[in-house]
Amino acid sequence: MRVVFLGVGGGVPSLPRALPALAVTLDGRILLWDCGEGTQMQLQKAGLSLQRITEIYISHIHGDHVLGLPGLLSSMTLLRRSKPLVIFGPQPVKTLVDVTLQLTQVEPEFELETHEVKAGIVFRHDNYAMEALRAIHSVPSLSFILRIADAPGHFNPSKAGRLGVPQGPLWKQLQQGQPVRTPKGRTVTPGEVLGPPQKGVVVAYSGDSAPNPDFAVAAHAASLLIHDATFAQIHATKAAEYLHSTAAQAAEIAKQAEAKQLALVHISPRYQSTQQHLEEAQAIVARTIAPNDLDAVEIRSRLPAHAASES
Amino acid sequence: MRVVFLGVGGGVPSLPRALPALAVTLDGRILLWDCGEGTQMQLQKAGLSLQRITEIYISHIHGDHVLGLPGLLSSMTLLRRSKPLVIFGPQPVKTLVDVTLQLTQVEPEFELETHEVKAGIVFRHDNYAMEALRAIHSVPSLSFILRIADAPGHFNPSKAGRLGVPQGPLWKQLQQGQPVRTPKGRTVTPGEVLGPPQKGVVVAYSGDSAPNPDFAVAAHAASLLIHDATFAQIHATKAAEYLHSTAAQAAEIAKQAEAKQLALVHISPRYQSTQQHLEEAQAIVARTIAPNDLDAVEIRSRLPAHAASES
Repeated sequence: MRVVFLGVGGGVPSLPRALPALAVTLDGRILLWDCGEGTQMQLQKAGLSLQRITEIYISHIHGDHVLGLPGLLSSMTLLRRSKPLVIFGPQPVKTLVDVTLQLTQVEPEFELETHEVKAGIVFRHDNYAMEALRAIHSVPSLSFILRIADAPGHFNPSKAGRLGVPQGPLWKQLQQGQPVRTPKGRTVTPGEVLGPPQKGVVVAYSGDSAPNPDFAVAAHAASLLIHDATFAQIHATKAAEYLHSTAAQAAEIAKQAEAKQLALVHISPRYQSTQQHLEEAQAIVARTIAPNDLDAVEIRSRLPAHAASES
Repeated sequence: MRVVFLGVGGGVPSLPRALPALAVTLDGRILLWDCGEGTQMQLQKAGLSLQRITEIYISHIHGDHVLGLPGLLSSMTLLRRSKPLVIFGPQPVKTLVDVTLQLTQVEPEFELETHEVKAGIVFRHDNYAMEALRAIHSVPSLSFILRIADAPGHFNPSKAGRLGVPQGPLWKQLQQGQPVRTPKGRTVTPGEVLGPPQKGVVVAYSGDSAPNPDFAVAAHAASLLIHDATFAQIHATKAAEYLHSTAAQAAEIAKQAEAKQLALVHISPRYQSTQQHLEEAQAIVARTIAPNDLDAVEIRSRLPAHAASES
């Protein structure tokens, strides 16, 4: 699983920083968090096919977070996408999508659903779920928590073969965690043919938000917590005025959440460098990064202690 | 006067080619022709301030030509623009602008006018006028002809001083082409203090269009004719089907117009290289270019024959 920072700027794009968009690659799927103008170009630069996107989650309907959506849908349509796509976001995301497609005469041939959501689990797939949480901002805004469930370890087919388990329903039973009896009468346990179980992972994205204790709770133990850090400390009053966060406030939230890593995003174009942000946040949470556009963070499931000894 | 090719692609953006937008710099102003997604980023790369834009002309309301407009207006607003801006384009350009600004809660503090236009002179400034012409495309579409009027030559103040013309109303009269009498009784003619007159210039942009003989007439003797060349000859049937032009058709129009230079734009992302386009067009009009994104063409007023000998 990877998180690709497609655009780490906020408000107005700048030469070093594109507008907000994050791609999460997971099980061959791509999830987008936000879709600022230029997101489809950033996806190309990152080598990510826009046709692999399955869900788009919009934090709020400010232009810098959403104006890449009409163009992305237009390109998907021109490229003859057939796979369904689902979009989630606060009001009025559906109106924006519907009106811009209609005015520019784009008629997707793929199944396109746009859901206006408030809070709660907004989407579930096989082994992950996306939770939306109210953020603290000037318009209805969401933070998102991606929870990937604990998963059984990888099945080892050659080991199963050596133990005399024939391919077919018995393999499936082992994969589901049940012991089986081979045709020769031997009992094989899942532990003999499965790798170590993979622990669940949390990745959290604040969207635009003033510091929000609820987000710290929801993002508890996140492997990666991505937070609005529009301003450095010197502009703390602006952060308060516009309901954004400073880098230090982002770090305080990450500390409360006991997050394993913090990434600072939505950097105001007024800053040439993120050095100040980084120093102020690292004083609170050492494992803080200020990614550049197109940087990626790999997230691996960690082994629980009892499984680590097995491998 | 310069024409900057901000994006020479069409339909879907590609790594080598951004979506359609052209900037014309003129008298300290910037005029935009079309505004595809990412235009504000391309302006930054070209070193052109978006606050210097005075007019935006949209050829038609297909996403690739217009979806950079809401973000551009949003950035102008965030950057506290105060200078008026005027937008021209076919229906429904006004609805698109109004609805996207409203949904994303952008309230420009500058005077913003959006005019839905059909054909004719749509804008006049001191020494130039913009003419719109119906293009041949699948939705209401315009081509644009920029006409810069003939202008008197540059006034030479030191020469006027040496000839005994005092600064003030007499200078103005000379600049307007009238002879004057100096306080010492000498008659000074405009030819003595003005440089060679500058000949009018025409720059024409087809927008998306099948070959259109009316455009060739309107663009007569253009210094630069910029034309839809979505396809190479091998895809001529697609050009006909989608009401675009091939590079060769663009060249035929430029030849009919007796244009001095042809630039091929709106290149389909299916082509890695524009070599084929260029060869096919250059066989008809030798002075053809296939610009890359951010390339610029300088256009200087040429001297008429009778004036050239003076300088």
